[in-house]
Amino acid sequence: MDERALKEIVREIIGTGQTLDDCAVFPFGSMVLVATTDMLHETTDFPCGMTDWQIGWMSVAVTLSDIAAMGAQPAIILLAIGLDRGERLREILCGAKACCDSCGAELSGGDLDAHRELTIVSSGIGVAEEGNVIRRRGAVPGDLICITGPLGRAQAALEGYTRYERNLLEPVPRMTEGKRLASAGVSSMMDISDGLVLSLYDLLDANPCGYSIDSALLPLIEGVPPEKGREYALFGGGDFELLFTCSPEHFPIPALDSYIVGRVIRDHVVMVDEKMAPCRGYLHRW
Amino acid sequence: MDERALKEIVREIIGTGQTLDDCAVFPFGSMVLVATTDMLHETTDFPCGMTDWQIGWMSVAVTLSDIAAMGAQPAIILLAIGLDRGERLREILCGAKACCDSCGAELSGGDLDAHRELTIVSSGIGVAEEGNVIRRRGAVPGDLICITGPLGRAQAALEGYTRYERNLLEPVPRMTEGKRLASAGVSSMMDISDGLVLSLYDLLDANPCGYSIDSALLPLIEGVPPEKGREYALFGGGDFELLFTCSPEHFPIPALDSYIVGRVIRDHVVMVDEKMAPCRGYLHRW
Repeated sequence: MDERALKEIVREIIGTGQTLDDCAVFPFGSMVLVATTDMLHETTDFPCGMTDWQIGWMSVAVTLSDIAAMGAQPAIILLAIGLDRGERLREILCGAKACCDSCGAELSGGDLDAHRELTIVSSGIGVAEEGNVIRRRGAVPGDLICITGPLGRAQAALEGYTRYERNLLEPVPRMTEGKRLASAGVSSMMDISDGLVLSLYDLLDANPCGYSIDSALLPLIEGVPPEKGREYALFGGGDFELLFTCSPEHFPIPALDSYIVGRVIRDHVVMVDEKMAPCRGYLHRW
Repeated sequence: MDERALKEIVREIIGTGQTLDDCAVFPFGSMVLVATTDMLHETTDFPCGMTDWQIGWMSVAVTLSDIAAMGAQPAIILLAIGLDRGERLREILCGAKACCDSCGAELSGGDLDAHRELTIVSSGIGVAEEGNVIRRRGAVPGDLICITGPLGRAQAALEGYTRYERNLLEPVPRMTEGKRLASAGVSSMMDISDGLVLSLYDLLDANPCGYSIDSALLPLIEGVPPEKGREYALFGGGDFELLFTCSPEHFPIPALDSYIVGRVIRDHVVMVDEKMAPCRGYLHRW
């Protein structure tokens, strides 16, 4: 059974209202709670050579990045850890706590268990003011497609460019950026975990419009040949930048570096340089 | 490394404030959010012969029971599922949704992954009014020790008493009971997942007082010889009843069946029939 078939089952049983976004959303008085959970395993999610501290950091970073992508402030983070060896716990928790601290979140507890393969599930709750939560749905044709920073560093590290190792192993959730973008009134947002093109296909799933990227607009990373850099930026995963759309009059976003990389279009397709983009990323090959 | 050593590491790094209770607690305006996460694996947590629907039910029931034990109303439930076979997803989700629906909680999404051993992590968020959250800490000597129903049914099912199979496989979180007990102002509370005696040791961990049980007061389950019934009630796991303490003038609790089984004492020990109780449960032998 492929991922798409599994997703269909999820939508059939629990509906699409809460499953299209990076977080589930729950109105709470004049505020909104957002909540998300992510399961990571040693063999598929933690690149070889990663320290336990980095594994802890990464485990909560993915969750904090989902909260950032909604424009919310993270509050509580919980970790459920299935440990293969008890000796690993201290460093994993220290890394997780450091990442929480850096984002103003509280590592509030969780659950411990024994498991043959190290398995970590981080769950997070964030808060935002009503009307200040940004979803994947909301783009309209003519909106700009933007990113918060150059893409492809994590993929470059995987391909041997060691200068980008920290981008791969200690990704920084774009907390401040997410909140600024929400205040600025962008029309839709998500985080880029599996590559720009795959993320655009996720947006496509939530919107009636389409997305057209001009690869010449992509900010390139240093020290990598431009052609490879563009390939990594389009299809490489592991970056934690935010992808958002906004109407042209909202750009540039106050007090935030961001890059226009394309336009929202009427046709329900993802285009790169006016050709249909293949729906693929790289990172799953780890 | 044993469980106690692991717990010490957790407390050293993230503190004891949030790790003593069934849920982490987070003040939120005039309300309080509670949050909890539980990891379950096929081989250790799901008794042989359990259906996938029951596995889904059980996975969220443990989390909802933790929320009930704080006296809160569950709001959001998230599931992270590491599937060994995609075909299992539908029934697992249907069971999980049925349990959420029965408790007024919303199954709001989660994460899917492939795993060699079926692994499910449910995370839940509940809400309560400020001052209406009950913790494990709070009992004072002279308080009554009470339970919300007869104990030992799940253990009896494990020992072959098939009439109690549904108690083991489809445990019902004591949602209404938890909220009534919170409104009634009980002094401390938790759910009994690993047996009465082990739960009393958990309370001991959070309080300067001690606990003395009179086994003759334990309500016995039907169809099991009294001696076995008492043994199952004291040391058997898998029941989802609530354990609470309250001052004698608060008993009986309005509109709630509950049973006095002992007294809170000054000495920091757990006694059964005036003898020190062994710190053990049964359920881990599954």
